[in-house]
Amino acid sequence: MSPRPIPGFHAVVPAGGAGTRLWPLSRRAHPKFLLDLTGSGRTLLQGTWDRLAPLADGVTVVTGEAHAAAVREQLPELAGHALLTEPSGRDSMAAIGLAAALLRERHGDVVVGSFAADHVVRRPEAFAAAVREAVAAARAGYVVTIGVEADHPSTAFGYVESGAPLGVEGAPTALHVASFAEKPDAGTAAAYLGTGRYRWNAGMFVVRAEVLLEHLRRLQPPLHDGLLAIARAWDGPDRAEVLAREWPRLTRIAIDHAVAEPVAADGGVAVVPAELGWDDVGDWRSLATLLPAAADGVRTLGEGPALAADSAGAVLVPATGRLVAVLGLPGAVVVDTPDALLVTTTDHAQRLKEVVDRLPDALR
Amino acid sequence: MSPRPIPGFHAVVPAGGAGTRLWPLSRRAHPKFLLDLTGSGRTLLQGTWDRLAPLADGVTVVTGEAHAAAVREQLPELAGHALLTEPSGRDSMAAIGLAAALLRERHGDVVVGSFAADHVVRRPEAFAAAVREAVAAARAGYVVTIGVEADHPSTAFGYVESGAPLGVEGAPTALHVASFAEKPDAGTAAAYLGTGRYRWNAGMFVVRAEVLLEHLRRLQPPLHDGLLAIARAWDGPDRAEVLAREWPRLTRIAIDHAVAEPVAADGGVAVVPAELGWDDVGDWRSLATLLPAAADGVRTLGEGPALAADSAGAVLVPATGRLVAVLGLPGAVVVDTPDALLVTTTDHAQRLKEVVDRLPDALR
Repeated sequence: MSPRPIPGFHAVVPAGGAGTRLWPLSRRAHPKFLLDLTGSGRTLLQGTWDRLAPLADGVTVVTGEAHAAAVREQLPELAGHALLTEPSGRDSMAAIGLAAALLRERHGDVVVGSFAADHVVRRPEAFAAAVREAVAAARAGYVVTIGVEADHPSTAFGYVESGAPLGVEGAPTALHVASFAEKPDAGTAAAYLGTGRYRWNAGMFVVRAEVLLEHLRRLQPPLHDGLLAIARAWDGPDRAEVLAREWPRLTRIAIDHAVAEPVAADGGVAVVPAELGWDDVGDWRSLATLLPAAADGVRTLGEGPALAADSAGAVLVPATGRLVAVLGLPGAVVVDTPDALLVTTTDHAQRLKEVVDRLPDALR
Repeated sequence: MSPRPIPGFHAVVPAGGAGTRLWPLSRRAHPKFLLDLTGSGRTLLQGTWDRLAPLADGVTVVTGEAHAAAVREQLPELAGHALLTEPSGRDSMAAIGLAAALLRERHGDVVVGSFAADHVVRRPEAFAAAVREAVAAARAGYVVTIGVEADHPSTAFGYVESGAPLGVEGAPTALHVASFAEKPDAGTAAAYLGTGRYRWNAGMFVVRAEVLLEHLRRLQPPLHDGLLAIARAWDGPDRAEVLAREWPRLTRIAIDHAVAEPVAADGGVAVVPAELGWDDVGDWRSLATLLPAAADGVRTLGEGPALAADSAGAVLVPATGRLVAVLGLPGAVVVDTPDALLVTTTDHAQRLKEVVDRLPDALR
């Protein structure tokens, strides 16, 4: 059953990423969001589309020039004018701010919701309900985030600390946000969970375009002015000229630091708690939890032949058609691609950058 | 300095093997002896040739039909008539017995020495000295084996138990053989080493052709008669006909069981102890000890690119040109070939057959 659309709600999907944490499957030129990492037959970008398109009046994708063709190919339903191509990466505030400013130009003061292109949500119906509440809270003037139920004391995510109920109609579960916290150490993460007030910050923000741009005008005036200039020129003949002039000068900053944290300190942020079955697929260990395990405890991504003995918990990615055989390596991670092979363990997955940093450019 | 040749000594090299223990580098169709496993630039077969050719009046290679072309290609110096092709594998007694019978037909009662095509000897000068003594003892009528100094209580090899000095001129270090012992368990192997009387049985046998064939006539009469019939016809017009008739009926038996053990029980076997730097390259762990370790403790076989972090003791075989990257897997074994990839550890190397047994035929 498809969820009802939410009138006046526009989804924005920033589609970027360095591609290092799931190397060698993801690459700089072919990052995570372009991959089907769950064996569902849909890439993460397509999965994001599938979640958002039924809910929104429109979906806008913001991506780099290098990925525009791949995005168009994967999302044939995406309207031509709804793909915003960035000349270079200027971090999430520029990407989302540009989309918000342009949506306001085109549609007026709509509610904008920003959702990463490379996350997994296993409970789309819970996601739809949370977005619906978030839009209601956003209409009341809040910057709203969706706070993901933390099922373990992860040190890989930032946290949102909640306060009192928000008391906005249409958003019965929404709470005030007391603060945002950076990725904690293990002890702090455990303490967070103990309070019951902390949820994972999944980087989902829902806000009225006017509200976002007003915060931006106040907190980051040069960035605000640059984005507005670009948005006003976007659908006219001067886009290229204005982009060339303004884009390189845009402040590089994440939306968390630019808006969410300072506005939270002033009481302007709300959180809708949700159990989404969410995962940012941040590394090979994280991906492992998303793949079904065979009877021998081995998880395989891809159609290639694989054969394992005594290797429970292993993650095999046979992506070349060659046989991948693993013997006596519980928790092994074996990723077989045409030009590079990675062999590590789920325990070492977070250290992959050490390897990628040593790679020749052609293999990154 | 090349060693002096030993007059009347003919080397025999049985070149066979299933190719399973170093899979996927070795295959049924491309077994271990055809590979350069030490990075020396010479295959094991070529290394065997290099050790034997300077010592012998001639080198005879016995191999299966499937490998004849590869052997000729690797050994261009091998005389055409010195390559004996077996219609099918009938174990080592048939292979060595055929060579001995044919050498007697061609050259009379020469001394025949049999040496596997797929072992490594790191001290060829010690090998030459041991063969020289073994030939002297063989001339005196003994079946002579070269007993490899056991530097650890291996459970992967059979052992030769020595007795009193042989007292044969030209073989000052040779000893009587009391018995042959099968691969022992760990406790037994340690006890063997404690006595100082046990050496590894490396399957090297040196014996006069007449002596070997007389033992065979007595101990395995049908096999003896079949081999003699084949040898007599070999250089004439009836080879194919006689082979077709006799070969399929030859008894399948190893030379150890057919001759060495029963003759030892009668006091007819001698051993020349030797420190050869010998290795049968029986599995990936064994191969690891033959490769030089880089500063990070990683051993690499092949020219392909490899990159390792926190993986001391790993053995990497990049045989496709693809990058092989290993992170956090000490003792890993990663063998990258065009149609199959093996990931295991040196600790599991001896269990490789479990994997190979599950392979489709095309990948064996």
